[in-house]
Amino acid sequence: MDKAEIRVSAEDLTNFCLRVFQKLGVSEQDARITSEVLVMADLRGIESHGVARLRRYVDGLRNGVMVAKPEITTLRETPATALIDAGAGLGQPASRQAMQQAIQKAIEVGVGFVSLRNSNHYGIAGYYAMMALEHDCIGMSMTNSDALVVPTFGRDAMLGTNPIAVAAPANKELPFVLDMATSTVSRGKLEVYERQGKPVPMGWATDERGLGTDDAHRVLENFSKRAGGGLLPLGGEGELLTGYKGYGLALLVDVLCAVLSGAAYANLVYPKTPDGKPMPANLGHFFGAWRVDAFRPVDDFKVAMCGLHLVGVLCFIVSTTTVQLSKHWSGILARAKTSYVCQQCGAQHVNWSGKCAGCGACASVCPEKAISFKEGDKQKE
Amino acid sequence: MDKAEIRVSAEDLTNFCLRVFQKLGVSEQDARITSEVLVMADLRGIESHGVARLRRYVDGLRNGVMVAKPEITTLRETPATALIDAGAGLGQPASRQAMQQAIQKAIEVGVGFVSLRNSNHYGIAGYYAMMALEHDCIGMSMTNSDALVVPTFGRDAMLGTNPIAVAAPANKELPFVLDMATSTVSRGKLEVYERQGKPVPMGWATDERGLGTDDAHRVLENFSKRAGGGLLPLGGEGELLTGYKGYGLALLVDVLCAVLSGAAYANLVYPKTPDGKPMPANLGHFFGAWRVDAFRPVDDFKVAMCGLHLVGVLCFIVSTTTVQLSKHWSGILARAKTSYVCQQCGAQHVNWSGKCAGCGACASVCPEKAISFKEGDKQKE
Repeated sequence: MDKAEIRVSAEDLTNFCLRVFQKLGVSEQDARITSEVLVMADLRGIESHGVARLRRYVDGLRNGVMVAKPEITTLRETPATALIDAGAGLGQPASRQAMQQAIQKAIEVGVGFVSLRNSNHYGIAGYYAMMALEHDCIGMSMTNSDALVVPTFGRDAMLGTNPIAVAAPANKELPFVLDMATSTVSRGKLEVYERQGKPVPMGWATDERGLGTDDAHRVLENFSKRAGGGLLPLGGEGELLTGYKGYGLALLVDVLCAVLSGAAYANLVYPKTPDGKPMPANLGHFFGAWRVDAFRPVDDFKVAMCGLHLVGVLCFIVSTTTVQLSKHWSGILARAKTSYVCQQCGAQHVNWSGKCAGCGACASVCPEKAISFKEGDKQKE
Repeated sequence: MDKAEIRVSAEDLTNFCLRVFQKLGVSEQDARITSEVLVMADLRGIESHGVARLRRYVDGLRNGVMVAKPEITTLRETPATALIDAGAGLGQPASRQAMQQAIQKAIEVGVGFVSLRNSNHYGIAGYYAMMALEHDCIGMSMTNSDALVVPTFGRDAMLGTNPIAVAAPANKELPFVLDMATSTVSRGKLEVYERQGKPVPMGWATDERGLGTDDAHRVLENFSKRAGGGLLPLGGEGELLTGYKGYGLALLVDVLCAVLSGAAYANLVYPKTPDGKPMPANLGHFFGAWRVDAFRPVDDFKVAMCGLHLVGVLCFIVSTTTVQLSKHWSGILARAKTSYVCQQCGAQHVNWSGKCAGCGACASVCPEKAISFKEGDKQKE
């Protein structure tokens, strides 16, 4: 830990955000939900989607891109689906409500899907998918986003980093939580390389001509000028490592989030008036829940989930170091719990890569090594 | 076209398969469905999943891995979901029935999901997703498969190429059809490189030590000996281009197809008896359908789908050659229609990459160039 770093408790940080949002006219309930989602991102080590984003929310609430007290309207509804207009409010409260509806429908008829339009940035996709876990449902969450990703062989950024998140419950092992952008990396990762003055790996980004580049500064400057180029889809540049699959996944997210809901799609998000004033972003989200026992008994499902863990862990053990093991295993699978107690320093949480935020010790799920972290206090409901 | 090549009409090929399956005790209806799915793969240029697979089906029906006249049983059902046991029969007839059920449920309650266990190889994932198109639904299809893919930093193949397919209807433009393995490439692609004696690009496969390799022959030999190594997940080797996302997607498919249905998961598929005899594969599939007008009017949706096409095409036009344009655009989006008439030679179909199977001419969706292909006869219902 950097000596100059100031450490703030999650509670204080949440309360700070809460006061900021309330000051800008957001209701206490909506402010609380939004603050919780932002702080959870930091607790899980996804700083790009944490409280660092607060500035953009403040700007959005001030300039009218985000409405402080939106009218959230259900436009269509069936036993298993709903379409909601988020009234250009903060993405988090409307998204939480939509995911709750999806879960309720899954409880009633086996599966529920709710799409949202006229929304804003909703924070980390995984937050909503994970809401399903305590109901013994599998949860899904997707959103489209600001166009930063260049289609395969393209020159201009036309699609968002369009994340997909899915969470599935287990019993003894951690739940499965996948929460991934469909691009190779996020803008935040380029910013880290720029600060460090390091070249980025080829396959992450293109320059304004649509050619691969290792120059993070150039890509970021092109973003601010809308000069062309951007991030590459999962699979990288061209067709060599089938980057068109990542492009296809990003398109898929746009179809389900925006085309299906009537939100803005592709690079039509975050529109501006003819004189350049920002208008509501009109992002779209898509939430789903499958009730496990609509398909098979919950206990059987959870035992098999742990079995899947087991073969996954075993395959890692034979071939890799513990650090790599914990890094990737927990990167994909262990994001689901935010509260651990480090056995070395007693800190209350680890970040998503399985490192203690207090002392930097590394968690491991390898049964041959001591497990460094145990589950902490249960999260508040 | 190679002069030595023998060209067989799709109808003759279908009838040949039909007779083979019936000879092995499969009912006429099931034989017809299975033959249709196999031939459709060839028509769409996915030869790895076409009639070349017939040998494996024949072996499977002879050695008991596949049951010719299976008992297909619905084990659980809710208004929006079902779980089906495929009775170890051919994957295609049970999968077609399951997708029909998912569509029917979507028509009734807005969305339908059906999972299948105790199944076999089901052919191309896209076939089932595309069944939803004529009902103005969005279709989804996934399956787990033979363990050929090495998890990130792993040494042994633990997961299948686990494809994901989603199809969404449009009006003037082609439907959106994404049909992709979650690995970088398929085994078939390595076989092509082996035959040509060419090194494969780094990022496609690992050797038996879990290290990246360009030696296709070595990887394929390791497969046959189960010696370790295999294909890499989408995103390639290690974490440089975030190959763990492809690994996460493959796990996701296993959770939804196998853990949720009670099928065999990960490398537990295709089990053998203690004395080495093959047992039923126990693959799992997952099918879903969303009824478009449960969310918004179908016409509005289709107009927006064409708009998505438009921004996609435009972004390509400014930056790439027509060949690249048509290759990738049609690769991802144009697989949905199998019947075109080539304006140059009159052949009745083009393959998935947009090339005429008759004369090799290239299709293009670029509005600045003449569109080489027009829609042919409507497919039979």
